[in-house]
Amino acid sequence: MSITARRVGDDDPGVQMSESAAPAPLLTEIDHIAIAVPDLGAAIDYYRDTFGATVDHREVVESDGVEEALLKVAESYVQLLTPTRDDSTVAKWLANRGGPGIHHVGYRVADCAVALESVKAQGFRVLDDAPRPGSRGTTVAFIHPKDALGTLIELVQE
Amino acid sequence: MSITARRVGDDDPGVQMSESAAPAPLLTEIDHIAIAVPDLGAAIDYYRDTFGATVDHREVVESDGVEEALLKVAESYVQLLTPTRDDSTVAKWLANRGGPGIHHVGYRVADCAVALESVKAQGFRVLDDAPRPGSRGTTVAFIHPKDALGTLIELVQE
Repeated sequence: MSITARRVGDDDPGVQMSESAAPAPLLTEIDHIAIAVPDLGAAIDYYRDTFGATVDHREVVESDGVEEALLKVAESYVQLLTPTRDDSTVAKWLANRGGPGIHHVGYRVADCAVALESVKAQGFRVLDDAPRPGSRGTTVAFIHPKDALGTLIELVQE
Repeated sequence: MSITARRVGDDDPGVQMSESAAPAPLLTEIDHIAIAVPDLGAAIDYYRDTFGATVDHREVVESDGVEEALLKVAESYVQLLTPTRDDSTVAKWLANRGGPGIHHVGYRVADCAVALESVKAQGFRVLDDAPRPGSRGTTVAFIHPKDALGTLIELVQE
């Protein structure tokens, strides 16, 4: 991963833009809210028993060291996420936090590459320098939370 | 345990559920993802300049000691949230965390009282014992995060 983008001024994030115009709206849907948990089965039970929400899709993402269960809510998902190995970033996140919690938000976009370029054009750091495959056949890229209001953001193209 | 929660607007006239049965689906939409920030203006600028997302609604909620800006994404919102006084829970949350981040998730429900009853019927703690007014004319109730996968959940009825 090559991080070349740096934010210049904290108080004026728009200062690097060559033009003052904001981009056309890039976010088409809250794709998912991701909740990292140590016990995926217990988390699925919680959402079923409390809210009647059931699993629409379940997948192991080997490259990220996670297993996820997606619960469909309208056109969005609640993504329950658990590590499949100790060296996955989600395993470390759970250990640091000391328990489950909201891990990241996924914003759906029409074109992941275009949205990622918009982030880079603002001088903000990214975790994925180029779009890559995500779960359920999506194309995704993560933005660095330190440059995004402390929020780990995943850009998701279906 | 007798679950009397019923889904409003469902064709089903309301079946008394047995102990083991999950409730009918209660979550109709991810209403919002709430991001707590120390500087609301800078946060609004970030979403406008990076994603072309603009403010749909802005409101001070005196009872909670917060000001919020709602950015509409399809039928959901990104809620940017900042404290208006030092003793607000969001001010304390920001101080504890040391910076901005995802604060809670709002799930839209047809009937806040019904959804809250379902949570209580499972034996889970709540922060609001009864539904109360939220921003933009909604009716809301918060669930205790310790009993909800470390996730602060707001139930939102429009």
